[in-house]
Amino acid sequence: MELVFLWPGQTKNPHLRALQEDYLARLRLLGRARIVETAEARGLKESAPEKIMEREAERLEKHLEDGYIICLSDKGKMMTSEELARLIDRQAMISARRIIFLVGGFLGLASRLLDRADLKLSLSPMTFSHELTRVVLLEQVYRAINLIKGYAYPK
Amino acid sequence: MELVFLWPGQTKNPHLRALQEDYLARLRLLGRARIVETAEARGLKESAPEKIMEREAERLEKHLEDGYIICLSDKGKMMTSEELARLIDRQAMISARRIIFLVGGFLGLASRLLDRADLKLSLSPMTFSHELTRVVLLEQVYRAINLIKGYAYPK
Repeated sequence: MELVFLWPGQTKNPHLRALQEDYLARLRLLGRARIVETAEARGLKESAPEKIMEREAERLEKHLEDGYIICLSDKGKMMTSEELARLIDRQAMISARRIIFLVGGFLGLASRLLDRADLKLSLSPMTFSHELTRVVLLEQVYRAINLIKGYAYPK
Repeated sequence: MELVFLWPGQTKNPHLRALQEDYLARLRLLGRARIVETAEARGLKESAPEKIMEREAERLEKHLEDGYIICLSDKGKMMTSEELARLIDRQAMISARRIIFLVGGFLGLASRLLDRADLKLSLSPMTFSHELTRVVLLEQVYRAINLIKGYAYPK
């Protein structure tokens, strides 16, 4: 099983970026995992959010390989860490291929990407910045893999 | 109004620590805010969690000044970012003194501290590490103050 984290634009905050690399490195000690950061839509005015999301969606779609797709969305399903771990574990047993976590940029994900999700997941009823969302997601997936493998992981 | 963030032990992860300092600095541009990190309970075995929480509670209590106390707890109430902002705004208008956010360490908060809470708050149905919880909380409070002041703040 491979874990893929896919989003538009490199994480800019240097501390969040360092945490992101940290969790990826830890995940790679436990199995296959990678982060794919596609190009952001530049040169478009923020007054054209649909266009930005559309252009980002085109680029993200090129990297949407076969697999179980989990889109992060504020309208998604909320789960406990244990429920997420069980879901990942079940998918790994069923398909044994790939789980793709898709996280939007500043404006979120285009609806046609959300439509392709096997699961829409919400991390919290609160709104996190999109870069913080990436780190919280990585921490949760790292926690999940530890739970599945029965390793102790600090609270 | 003053915002106080109170927890046992210095945040050890250097990147989370940097984020914590960053959000505090940004909050201080908007009003009074400080972080109080009391000493951790050292030299006790993890097999004595009650003792650790008890010792940490004694130290935290010394810093529990008058104010509206919000304890973070996984059994707490979940809120949207907007609901948290309204609550902070209302408390600032009613008491205009101090809001104290109390976050537990590795083992959480002793029940007698939870009993003193005016509000028990949960950030997510998921379990975050206690150091990540601090950063997510600071981001949410920073977001809340921006919402109250009507400033734009990125998603």
